[in-house]
Amino acid sequence: MENYSFRNDYSEGAHPKILEALIKTNLIQNDGYSEDSYCNEAIQIIRNKIQNQEADIHFVSGGTQANLIIISSALKSYESVIAASTAHIVVHETGAIEATGHKINLIETYNGKLRPEDIKTVIDLHTDEHMVKPRLVFISNTTEVGSIYSKKELNELSSFCKHNGLLLYLDGARLGSALASEFNDISLAELSNLVDVFYIGGTKNGALLGEAIVINNKQLKENFRFHLKQKGALLAKGRIFGIQFSELLRTDLFLELGKHANLMALKMANAIEKAGYSFLTQPVSNQIFPILPNTVIEKLSQKYGFYIWSKISETHSVIRLVTSWASKEDKIDKFIIYLEQNSYN
Amino acid sequence: MENYSFRNDYSEGAHPKILEALIKTNLIQNDGYSEDSYCNEAIQIIRNKIQNQEADIHFVSGGTQANLIIISSALKSYESVIAASTAHIVVHETGAIEATGHKINLIETYNGKLRPEDIKTVIDLHTDEHMVKPRLVFISNTTEVGSIYSKKELNELSSFCKHNGLLLYLDGARLGSALASEFNDISLAELSNLVDVFYIGGTKNGALLGEAIVINNKQLKENFRFHLKQKGALLAKGRIFGIQFSELLRTDLFLELGKHANLMALKMANAIEKAGYSFLTQPVSNQIFPILPNTVIEKLSQKYGFYIWSKISETHSVIRLVTSWASKEDKIDKFIIYLEQNSYN
Amino acid sequence: MENYSFRNDYSEGAHPKILEALIKTNLIQNDGYSEDSYCNEAIQIIRNKIQNQEADIHFVSGGTQANLIIISSALKSYESVIAASTAHIVVHETGAIEATGHKINLIETYNGKLRPEDIKTVIDLHTDEHMVKPRLVFISNTTEVGSIYSKKELNELSSFCKHNGLLLYLDGARLGSALASEFNDISLAELSNLVDVFYIGGTKNGALLGEAIVINNKQLKENFRFHLKQKGALLAKGRIFGIQFSELLRTDLFLELGKHANLMALKMANAIEKAGYSFLTQPVSNQIFPILPNTVIEKLSQKYGFYIWSKISETHSVIRLVTSWASKEDKIDKFIIYLEQNSYN
Amino acid sequence: MENYSFRNDYSEGAHPKILEALIKTNLIQNDGYSEDSYCNEAIQIIRNKIQNQEADIHFVSGGTQANLIIISSALKSYESVIAASTAHIVVHETGAIEATGHKINLIETYNGKLRPEDIKTVIDLHTDEHMVKPRLVFISNTTEVGSIYSKKELNELSSFCKHNGLLLYLDGARLGSALASEFNDISLAELSNLVDVFYIGGTKNGALLGEAIVINNKQLKENFRFHLKQKGALLAKGRIFGIQFSELLRTDLFLELGKHANLMALKMANAIEKAGYSFLTQPVSNQIFPILPNTVIEKLSQKYGFYIWSKISETHSVIRLVTSWASKEDKIDKFIIYLEQNSYN
Repeated sequence: MENYSFRNDYSEGAHPKILEALIKTNLIQNDGYSEDSYCNEAIQIIRNKIQNQEADIHFVSGGTQANLIIISSALKSYESVIAASTAHIVVHETGAIEATGHKINLIETYNGKLRPEDIKTVIDLHTDEHMVKPRLVFISNTTEVGSIYSKKELNELSSFCKHNGLLLYLDGARLGSALASEFNDISLAELSNLVDVFYIGGTKNGALLGEAIVINNKQLKENFRFHLKQKGALLAKGRIFGIQFSELLRTDLFLELGKHANLMALKMANAIEKAGYSFLTQPVSNQIFPILPNTVIEKLSQKYGFYIWSKISETHSVIRLVTSWASKEDKIDKFIIYLEQNSYN
Repeated sequence: MENYSFRNDYSEGAHPKILEALIKTNLIQNDGYSEDSYCNEAIQIIRNKIQNQEADIHFVSGGTQANLIIISSALKSYESVIAASTAHIVVHETGAIEATGHKINLIETYNGKLRPEDIKTVIDLHTDEHMVKPRLVFISNTTEVGSIYSKKELNELSSFCKHNGLLLYLDGARLGSALASEFNDISLAELSNLVDVFYIGGTKNGALLGEAIVINNKQLKENFRFHLKQKGALLAKGRIFGIQFSELLRTDLFLELGKHANLMALKMANAIEKAGYSFLTQPVSNQIFPILPNTVIEKLSQKYGFYIWSKISETHSVIRLVTSWASKEDKIDKFIIYLEQNSYN
Repeated sequence: MENYSFRNDYSEGAHPKILEALIKTNLIQNDGYSEDSYCNEAIQIIRNKIQNQEADIHFVSGGTQANLIIISSALKSYESVIAASTAHIVVHETGAIEATGHKINLIETYNGKLRPEDIKTVIDLHTDEHMVKPRLVFISNTTEVGSIYSKKELNELSSFCKHNGLLLYLDGARLGSALASEFNDISLAELSNLVDVFYIGGTKNGALLGEAIVINNKQLKENFRFHLKQKGALLAKGRIFGIQFSELLRTDLFLELGKHANLMALKMANAIEKAGYSFLTQPVSNQIFPILPNTVIEKLSQKYGFYIWSKISETHSVIRLVTSWASKEDKIDKFIIYLEQNSYN
Repeated sequence: MENYSFRNDYSEGAHPKILEALIKTNLIQNDGYSEDSYCNEAIQIIRNKIQNQEADIHFVSGGTQANLIIISSALKSYESVIAASTAHIVVHETGAIEATGHKINLIETYNGKLRPEDIKTVIDLHTDEHMVKPRLVFISNTTEVGSIYSKKELNELSSFCKHNGLLLYLDGARLGSALASEFNDISLAELSNLVDVFYIGGTKNGALLGEAIVINNKQLKENFRFHLKQKGALLAKGRIFGIQFSELLRTDLFLELGKHANLMALKMANAIEKAGYSFLTQPVSNQIFPILPNTVIEKLSQKYGFYIWSKISETHSVIRLVTSWASKEDKIDKFIIYLEQNSYN
């Protein structure tokens, strides 16, 4: 049996402070469907943090749900999404976006990040009513391969989108890790200001479940609760979102949890580099992608849980190691020792 | 400010035993997406309770989500649903079923319950490819107007559906209240045996969130997890469903919570009857629908929360009073006293 | 074998003048997808006839296609249609509207026509995001039971819709018969001015195929050709629509064909009335609905084709008799004689 | 003004014999919705030609309509299509397939044709319920870049699909040109036998409009007319399909028209090759894709209509020249002379 899992950042329950908050509020009566006082508090906290009192905030239970509702509510039937070919919506959501009727125009990237020139290529190809009309640019931060966007990159994307009538949507499933990265140079408020809509991921950063959708663009706000209800996303006990996000964001807990996850991942990354291995993308967040000999991977898999990401050659593959707010440093230390014992580079 | 709310059965958090179970399991690593040991345990408990080891069990976060995924996964694009005009999917789910592409054929009823002869009328009208093909019969137990189905009624419906190539689906959002009713004469296992698919409601009977979908019909099982994922219903920390349903069903907690809710509602119903008022439907579960003078309703609304269901005449209306596992008897007693003080029949 | 069919108004091909026009233009090269000179000519003719040079005109191949594209392009996902329960989209289009994701809110009528007070009842019931948002009112002229709207009725509907933020859409599959009725008091231009969008039916009034969609409301015009293409409605040889509608509308041919159909129907209606029978709705157009003894219906069906519309009692039923531009007067005369011979009222 | 258009194969009306058949049958009464005697005749002719008396045959008005109905009726919601990135459904149908809810998995090709090894790569990547399930392979013959499949290639594809539980669908918009190609080595009956479903294109091979869908796979036949009606594809005067396809297929007219188109294209191709230019794909059908200097393209565009397909370099581009049953040889001859006068290779 495996000693420890680095498969993902949702292997445990919730941060203890969140459970405490659920207990403390448990028997107080409140309105249903996220119209309770806890949600109101969380909404106010988020508005303050992003420095936009006009933002609409809604809560949903997971990332795929957030993606499919945001995208389908923002687009007309003939409008499409532009995304990196590594994007979660492209590969790992069972065609959830297409299931709402929308094509995704793919862009190949080397690091999971979109650039204005890539997007321009797509829109230049779509010229008339025999083709879809690209309308929404999907990015994620951190990306699906662990990289993060710089302030300059987000500024350029935002500016390009505005000038080309495109909506910019940021999937923040791992936004906590991105903002807490030592390589990050943008604040939550600055980031929020550059996108039409994004979500703050709770599930992968200490919550039991829940993502907070932030809508800055007025056009996208209209009757959003109708979309939530119609897609089965309006929870009767919506209070559990408000309680959790208040707890995560009232203090700096959200960033601290991201920071811990990043530290644990970078500690592993340093050891892996020292052992002589390279990476698919530079390690900067809680997901790292070392390129290892298959023999080493085989050894590691006897004690640890992780996914094999892709094959590089006959002898080497990329694996994904993920840490979280719950990762224990002593387990990381043991992993490093075990890796050293099993590397012969 | 109101003293107490009878608006619904989801005004509080979760039963304390459920919170305890979440705490106890919190830091144990487990697989994601409901493939963890807690879900496995809950699934086994449910299979035992329904006496069908072949049943497929899946967990989702709410009733609308359960309804739309079950129905859309069971039907071909041109097939329709038959439902009472009071059904939740008809009125209160923002057209979620139609949004998946399916028409609902309506049947007017006096008590929220469907009968074979009603269904026959609908199928007799649909004769060729210029019309939809009715295929799935939607019932709920308890119904949206608080009534429950007898064993005989369910037997007749089940038999009629089988003989006419129709699927029978039971929405069990309030199945706990139905099975715990003193007027109920069917067991969970018997009920399960009569329907192709149903769900056991957690949200309205003590859970933080969650409904357990039970699929008995083999045809409906195929690749159901693809549907869940595509509709955004597969939670990363699916463990929270397993933990909760194990806690609710390992013992008789699920039925006890339903029983408490029913008792509280019937206590109110008795007092209302004693005060000389009648009901839209006979009180048998945790939802009661007294017909009251508007003046009395006005008085009640100064102290209590509830919904006005419908207008009966210029002077009288129906209100809905709902109790739950969390309803406190002393609040019920005070409500009764207040009602007596404000009735002059 | 039957002598003659009164089943519908599409039992023959096209009016000879239309075939002539197809032949005359056949080998001239032109652009595809309705961007040819014939479509341009037809569009200009229609704009002149409706006295609105700003209208957008598009051509599609049939009524169900027109209905589903117009309605789905006009509505947001949570918006619904209000229609009479006899409406073609409710009964005879295999759930095509729901298949695009939209609920239809039904209104029972006695003559197939909607009134403002009926619509008000529906919108009053829809108050929040747990329900759909009624947005588009669907009417047809002639209606599915052969009745027509008066100028006063259309004025009232139009005014009510405007004041309540509702779109008004008129299905004109049999608009030729409606406008040519001796009971009609509204012109095409007046009618067009009262609705947001409608279509002029070609298929049932002399064309091989084709309906001309007229969009008056600016909001509904945007990128309509994208909707057409995405739904498979943009024909490569769109020229056939332009050629046909130019031929029908350049002169008064369109109205003349409607008038002939109406005359033939009313001739039958007079004979039926004289024979002592009544009607489901007053005969005013090319569809009449006599109530006949089943014995007479049995006799008629030995020589003539028609549909039995509904059962009135154990002994009487309603049948539908339909005439068209192609109905031959001598066949009508023989039908009348045969009816007289077989009636014993 | 341009002398002649090589933009497409639908610039003219219909072959004169088809118009004659429409005239001859025009006033004969028949049943609606393709249940008439002409459709029955056409169906029998096609069954004989493909040597499969069990095949179901349906008629629709265009290629996008055929594609979207066939694909959406064949797939479960989570199943996807595999197609070449040049496929018509990928680029030129405004996302019609995604609009029915299905993802298209793309394969890059050099000649528009799919091979088993390409398809294997896609299915190997799709391993669980977090991804779509590839299920239907879409090919077209001729392809969108003018190439055709050999009997060997179709045999291999068919065999691979069968062994991997995949459906094989062939878009035959230009099947007439493919089968009539001097490079073709497969008969209609042999081709039909290798695919689950395909369509015989009428619009681009002499019909006014219309494609004949042939369903060989029993699973795909069920209630297909419901799909047709629901998508707005069941024409009231379906007789026009029957009349046209009977005319095209009763004799060898269908193949003769394809042969004429091919001859005209290859005559141009020979001249272009003689002038020293090469092609994107080898010219074998009625679409040819010469690579020309931009200066020559500019000259040609002053007299002839055609599309610029893609840019090859700063100085050269690919153009598409299309011929049809209606292309006049004297126009081709003049084009060749004009090309020679304007080439200086």
